[in-house]
Amino acid sequence: MTIPNSGVYLDNNATTRVDPEVLTEMLPLFTEHFGNPSSMHAFGAAVGGKIEWARKQVQALLGAGYDSEIVFTSGGTESDNTAILSTIEAYPKKKEIVTSVVEHPAVLALCDYLEKKRDYKIHRIGVDSKGNLDMDAYKAALSDRVAIVSIMWANNETGTIFPIEELAQLAKAVGAIFHTDAVQAVGKIPMKLADSAVDLLSLSGHKLHAPKGIGALYVKRGLRFRPMMRGGHQERSRRAGTENAPAIVGLGAAAHLALTHMAEENTRVKAQRDRLEQAILAAVPSCFVTGNPDNRLPNTCNVAFEYIEGEAILLLLNEQGIAASSGSACTSGSLEPSHVMRAMGVPYTAAHGATRFSLSRDTTDAEIDHVIAVVPGIIAKLRSLSPYWEQSAGKAKDFAPVYS
Amino acid sequence: MTIPNSGVYLDNNATTRVDPEVLTEMLPLFTEHFGNPSSMHAFGAAVGGKIEWARKQVQALLGAGYDSEIVFTSGGTESDNTAILSTIEAYPKKKEIVTSVVEHPAVLALCDYLEKKRDYKIHRIGVDSKGNLDMDAYKAALSDRVAIVSIMWANNETGTIFPIEELAQLAKAVGAIFHTDAVQAVGKIPMKLADSAVDLLSLSGHKLHAPKGIGALYVKRGLRFRPMMRGGHQERSRRAGTENAPAIVGLGAAAHLALTHMAEENTRVKAQRDRLEQAILAAVPSCFVTGNPDNRLPNTCNVAFEYIEGEAILLLLNEQGIAASSGSACTSGSLEPSHVMRAMGVPYTAAHGATRFSLSRDTTDAEIDHVIAVVPGIIAKLRSLSPYWEQSAGKAKDFAPVYS
Ligand SMILES: Cc1ncc(COP(=O)(O)O)c(C=O)c1O
Ligand SMILES: Cc1ncc(COP(=O)(O)O)c(C=O)c1O
Repeated sequence: MTIPNSGVYLDNNATTRVDPEVLTEMLPLFTEHFGNPSSMHAFGAAVGGKIEWARKQVQALLGAGYDSEIVFTSGGTESDNTAILSTIEAYPKKKEIVTSVVEHPAVLALCDYLEKKRDYKIHRIGVDSKGNLDMDAYKAALSDRVAIVSIMWANNETGTIFPIEELAQLAKAVGAIFHTDAVQAVGKIPMKLADSAVDLLSLSGHKLHAPKGIGALYVKRGLRFRPMMRGGHQERSRRAGTENAPAIVGLGAAAHLALTHMAEENTRVKAQRDRLEQAILAAVPSCFVTGNPDNRLPNTCNVAFEYIEGEAILLLLNEQGIAASSGSACTSGSLEPSHVMRAMGVPYTAAHGATRFSLSRDTTDAEIDHVIAVVPGIIAKLRSLSPYWEQSAGKAKDFAPVYS
Repeated sequence: MTIPNSGVYLDNNATTRVDPEVLTEMLPLFTEHFGNPSSMHAFGAAVGGKIEWARKQVQALLGAGYDSEIVFTSGGTESDNTAILSTIEAYPKKKEIVTSVVEHPAVLALCDYLEKKRDYKIHRIGVDSKGNLDMDAYKAALSDRVAIVSIMWANNETGTIFPIEELAQLAKAVGAIFHTDAVQAVGKIPMKLADSAVDLLSLSGHKLHAPKGIGALYVKRGLRFRPMMRGGHQERSRRAGTENAPAIVGLGAAAHLALTHMAEENTRVKAQRDRLEQAILAAVPSCFVTGNPDNRLPNTCNVAFEYIEGEAILLLLNEQGIAASSGSACTSGSLEPSHVMRAMGVPYTAAHGATRFSLSRDTTDAEIDHVIAVVPGIIAKLRSLSPYWEQSAGKAKDFAPVYS
């Protein structure tokens, strides 16, 4: 079996390749048009216009009412941190935060810190075995003591989508500000923030074929805002620091591409993903899909292979030229199953073998064929070496029906 | 007179062109090697090694003892904000900060905020007419109540250099942490932080021919540190967020170039700068150099032209294809003279006409010739339109001796 091109990249939820068109748009900003947009001369002036063009592209992708609602940041983490820190500073008397157990560390680590060091009460809402939010617990946590609700639009590990509009409206009803980490959703789910109750939304460029080191925070017009980074008056005094013009223009170009091709790409990518998933489920015993198979990002498939280790799977996939992921990239290297798998109650024997395949517009049918061809052999090989598999043969299937 | 190339760029203290060699090093990280360095597969693995290479280049440029002392950030503003916020959080009982009146807004705006909103006492040390720090006031402000001293290595508007090692040792003697905003100094002044009392140092890539949106914070080994950005474990848990690998590698390449060519470039650039300055002073009446002419960055020259407006000068220079700056880029657009000019006591009639020419390794002798040829005519033209010039003719020279 030959490996297509230089390798099969199915780790697009970790990061994506910069689209060649995006890079083409960026290049002049490194060289001819390298000026500082705040400067009073020709080298700077050209750049300011490009940045405003990019802002309008991001506005369009989000369906935001105004381009001034888009604040460029250095990435998803900065956007998440800024949203939460800004809001609690703007509403200092409200000492509670509502979030979920399956958020990205960019939200969870900050909440842990606020709990330990600043006496915030954090409500971490649980999920069921399919990764769906516990709506009763969510409603019970809401009150006028809550400064901000921060719930992700789609989960990075399983792709499971949360009912953001419903959650936002419930939050607004008690006077809380609603933030969503939409880092995995932007570019994959159509959005119309102008008609939405969402107050703050985070996105990250490198998840949608723009470069790393750029992101944006949507800040609804009229919202109280306190900057995290203080200094110059860039971004209407909401984010100090010389504008990262090449990356901003790259994000603009990527947003334009995403909006133009979203429907068609989603259809194609979803078909590839479903074919991959069904082939694996059919060929490999004792494995199941984690998360909610009926309400997921079109590009994400997370399969738990029982009685083997995710890291070993990744190593053998890598030997076959296939890049995938176990848990989120940020926490790999640790031997604990990911917090998302634990939150869904996936048994340890299966959570350890959870493997995420995340596709993108770059994914080809030949690549999917290759993965389908090699995965069953890899799993069989690892299981033949696993003492747990030997001991549990036959019992393994008992877990499956709960999640698949 | 023909304008060399596409224009004469003498605004390198605002931002620099990305060096073509730097861009060449960066490009593969956008495309082939776009992986997430935290990932467990070939796409990510190549990237991790590149980042560590870049860290070593920055370490070498700073003369730091350990590469682990370098934390990559999104730029100078983030580095400055992080240094100060980290330190005051690590030493919560010390409620005073010492800084200078001529710092960049990335330090001053944060200090203003800490004064107003968090009850910090801020000692803003003044400067004399040449921009030299008031050492008596500095010593008087130091005490064991001071959490952090933040003094810039070199001023962005005048290039004036502060005696950082002496200032750092005085700060250490009272148990304060010493931070320096070295955004304008790095790459222009040789450094050996391994033998220095400096605890924290900020730098910004786009001031040394690396791209925008990348910077670093030097954190001396053993220093108490509290991250500003929380989330994943990147940068040894000191700066969360997916690593901006292309820009980090760009910064590494730029640091390598700066270290390799520093001595020779400084000599050449200083000769160009001196030639420009002397020609202007000789040809234009009633103007003088601001800052300390004997202790300046080799690339910076700030001339105050009396009785005319800096913005008008910039417009006419721009018409001649010359990019320069008045005040710092971040505060242009405002009609007040810059805080640096006011701090030095430059009279309003001269401060308004302060014009900064900042050179770089890209500057050619032909460009300097062009600027020398056109500046006297521009100044004469503007003065012929200025009612103040008419009224004050003859008196103007009285101010000059104090500053030149
Ligand atoms: C859901 C989610 N939120 C936030 C982030 C953080 O984004 P970044 O790495 O750009 O800071 C990521 C990806 O790493 C993510 O998947
Ligand atoms: C002295 C100084 N400090 C800090 C900064 C801020 O750096 P950045 O714009 O990269 O955030 C600048 C430049 O803008 C500067 O000149």
